[in-house]
Amino acid sequence: MASENQENVKGLQRVWGWIRGCWEKIVNAVTGVAKEAKNLGEEDPRRIIHSFKVGLAIVVVSLVYYFDFLYEGFGVSAMWAVMTVVVVFEFSVGATLGKGINRAIATLLGGALGVGAHRLASFTGDKIECTMLMVSVFLIAALATYTRFFPKLKARYDYGLLIFILTFSLISVSGYRDDEILDMAQRRLTTILIGGAVTVLVCILIFPVWAGSDLHKITATNIEKLAIFLEGFGHLYFQVPNDNDEEYKASMDEYKSVLNSKGIEDSLVNFAKWEPRHGKFRYRHPWDQYLKIGSLTRECAYKIDALNGYLNSDVEFVLPLQTPVGIRTKIQESCTKMTSECSIALRELAMGINTMTCSLSADSWVLNAKAAAKEFKSSLKTDLWSDTDLLDIVPAITVASLIIDIVSCTVKIANAVHELASLSNFKIPDPEIIKQINLEKVTRSPRIEASHSFGIMVE
Amino acid sequence: MASENQENVKGLQRVWGWIRGCWEKIVNAVTGVAKEAKNLGEEDPRRIIHSFKVGLAIVVVSLVYYFDFLYEGFGVSAMWAVMTVVVVFEFSVGATLGKGINRAIATLLGGALGVGAHRLASFTGDKIECTMLMVSVFLIAALATYTRFFPKLKARYDYGLLIFILTFSLISVSGYRDDEILDMAQRRLTTILIGGAVTVLVCILIFPVWAGSDLHKITATNIEKLAIFLEGFGHLYFQVPNDNDEEYKASMDEYKSVLNSKGIEDSLVNFAKWEPRHGKFRYRHPWDQYLKIGSLTRECAYKIDALNGYLNSDVEFVLPLQTPVGIRTKIQESCTKMTSECSIALRELAMGINTMTCSLSADSWVLNAKAAAKEFKSSLKTDLWSDTDLLDIVPAITVASLIIDIVSCTVKIANAVHELASLSNFKIPDPEIIKQINLEKVTRSPRIEASHSFGIMVE
Repeated sequence: MASENQENVKGLQRVWGWIRGCWEKIVNAVTGVAKEAKNLGEEDPRRIIHSFKVGLAIVVVSLVYYFDFLYEGFGVSAMWAVMTVVVVFEFSVGATLGKGINRAIATLLGGALGVGAHRLASFTGDKIECTMLMVSVFLIAALATYTRFFPKLKARYDYGLLIFILTFSLISVSGYRDDEILDMAQRRLTTILIGGAVTVLVCILIFPVWAGSDLHKITATNIEKLAIFLEGFGHLYFQVPNDNDEEYKASMDEYKSVLNSKGIEDSLVNFAKWEPRHGKFRYRHPWDQYLKIGSLTRECAYKIDALNGYLNSDVEFVLPLQTPVGIRTKIQESCTKMTSECSIALRELAMGINTMTCSLSADSWVLNAKAAAKEFKSSLKTDLWSDTDLLDIVPAITVASLIIDIVSCTVKIANAVHELASLSNFKIPDPEIIKQINLEKVTRSPRIEASHSFGIMVE
Repeated sequence: MASENQENVKGLQRVWGWIRGCWEKIVNAVTGVAKEAKNLGEEDPRRIIHSFKVGLAIVVVSLVYYFDFLYEGFGVSAMWAVMTVVVVFEFSVGATLGKGINRAIATLLGGALGVGAHRLASFTGDKIECTMLMVSVFLIAALATYTRFFPKLKARYDYGLLIFILTFSLISVSGYRDDEILDMAQRRLTTILIGGAVTVLVCILIFPVWAGSDLHKITATNIEKLAIFLEGFGHLYFQVPNDNDEEYKASMDEYKSVLNSKGIEDSLVNFAKWEPRHGKFRYRHPWDQYLKIGSLTRECAYKIDALNGYLNSDVEFVLPLQTPVGIRTKIQESCTKMTSECSIALRELAMGINTMTCSLSADSWVLNAKAAAKEFKSSLKTDLWSDTDLLDIVPAITVASLIIDIVSCTVKIANAVHELASLSNFKIPDPEIIKQINLEKVTRSPRIEASHSFGIMVE
């Protein structure tokens, strides 16, 4: 009896343990999700605002259902308004406007063509009407789908072509059942316009997110990431390891996100072109110039990636990469000078973009970097190197050589930024203000990229 | 009178000239578009087939409208079927299945929750019902929108979350006007399932495009592009310019597309994971390994980009990059050996991936490349260099050093490919067949990438 009781107690304990385990797992999962949600909000608080904006827009447009005088006009078609809000509302104004305009024009064209096809078919008999409609839907849908492969159309009008196929098919096929399709097409267009108008208004009037200014910030941030790497490299490569190294290393790795920045930059340029004048950006701001700067920034990042290999010395298997310290000191002066001058020049350029001022001092830093490169060149001629083994100096010389490449990349980036400055009339800075600004750092906005939806991505 | 006639004739001639000018412009535009359409079709004929497949699927699903017994069941809801086909049909099976499954499950969940919210609200009075519905729509829409920012959910379930918001809003808001929303929700679900089923069947049964096998091909092609560069580099850098150079240069630039291959690879991996067993790929094929290989391939491409700078000598402003021919010949033997062995090794690996066989011989080529690197190392110790100026040899040594980095990258790529081979049970090749295959080249499929839609892109 006693043993049976013990058995029971043990069984209960086991069940209780299992329940507690499950409960803990659930609690852990929930707190994990909550933590991630909090992080996402802290990284970019505009995400929280965006979510509420979407909710608001849907509620506003659903008023069509609640007021009799509105609902009587549209009937079931009122749902197109709700649908438009959900589908068209994007994170940035540019993306929303692009989708909205595409949807409106495509609905108009698709609807008109659909009504036309229906009218044409209705002159014939019932059998022939059916066949004609099917053939026309097949041909138009196939043709429009093929058009979506044209690179230029795909970039800006892909969504419009999709909605064109959709509207044409719906209108012309429904016409077989419902003869009042002109009414139907018109109701569809009106409700979509209402939905689109609500979306665009909510998107622009309440804390708008401008793709253009995000692109502007990202361009500056990416240039600054290169500057941070170069600054850290000077410290880490030539100096005795110390406690600050880990700190440097963490921020130095940020340049890696620049390597794959093409996708987001292309999307943002595309969105920005839809946007009206806002803040300091006028309509027809030279957005394409950002693509040029971005491409040069990436080119520089590739070189930096090659340089990074020498820091982590992962090519040890063939050549000794731990260059004797004596040799490092020989190139140290000119190399640290090159990296630091380039770093300052890049930081100035980033600052100039961010504040929309011409970065006059950047050029002088670039000149300094060039001068350091020439110094290095003449140091090679001296007898300093006569007693060294060629094998020992190979890595050091490669590092110096890559840094020289980076100097030449910096020159190109500086030129492209100057071109942007003259195209978009950056202001000439007040010398007093420059001094102040130099002391601050560019405020970097991490992970703006992740807020903009640009296609399905694996993390 | 005569002069008036002359005036008239001149006027007519001018008008005629204007009309002819316009006509020519139109003809030019049309032929231009036609040419581009032809090129797009020739680049990837599957685009033409895809377009016809979309047309066919829409026609099949529109039969719902033409047959009375089908239309009577669904009524106006039949349009959801047409809509689903247009929206869900994507280029590859994986993308289509992913969207279809997302849409079906999201409609089910959103519909159920919408019906629930409506039932709950209908217990109360009219005024309160309206407020409750609005509050619930606002909260659920805001919450679901915020969820779309979670990186893991965004990657695979972004479309599902969108459709969830859509269905929930539509059902719960319509409920205010139409009390038979259970019927409505059910009709919506059924028609979407019909549309989805037609889409998936047409997509899979008629010339299916598998994202997985495209990913497989692109991975091999990208590795081969690196091989082509290395092969060409050996010729161009060390040899006297001749007529074949232009030919080399054109194909060598292909490596540049590898630099920005991350976006398409991520998308294809994501699509591939939705796909069932097909061809030589089983379900749960190690798709993530392709991401690893892709990332190493890009790393190698960055180094190649740095090397490419020395070919075009665009850093001339600081250092003389036209290394004296005498010095080039000193490094020529070991460098050309390294590049050619690496090139062959990479080509073997690409071939191995393409034919799904273990590339046994690649390792021996990699070993040869390593040996060449060691040779170079020992050549530095000899007296060969004693009479040269250090300044003259800097570029040559940098080139050699970058090539050594590329050798080490090749080793990593080879290891990653071997890992893929063992994970997905590549077959051990018949030695006789290898010899034959070596004589052929990998058939490259240009611009597969452009066929898959992965977000809005500027060209």
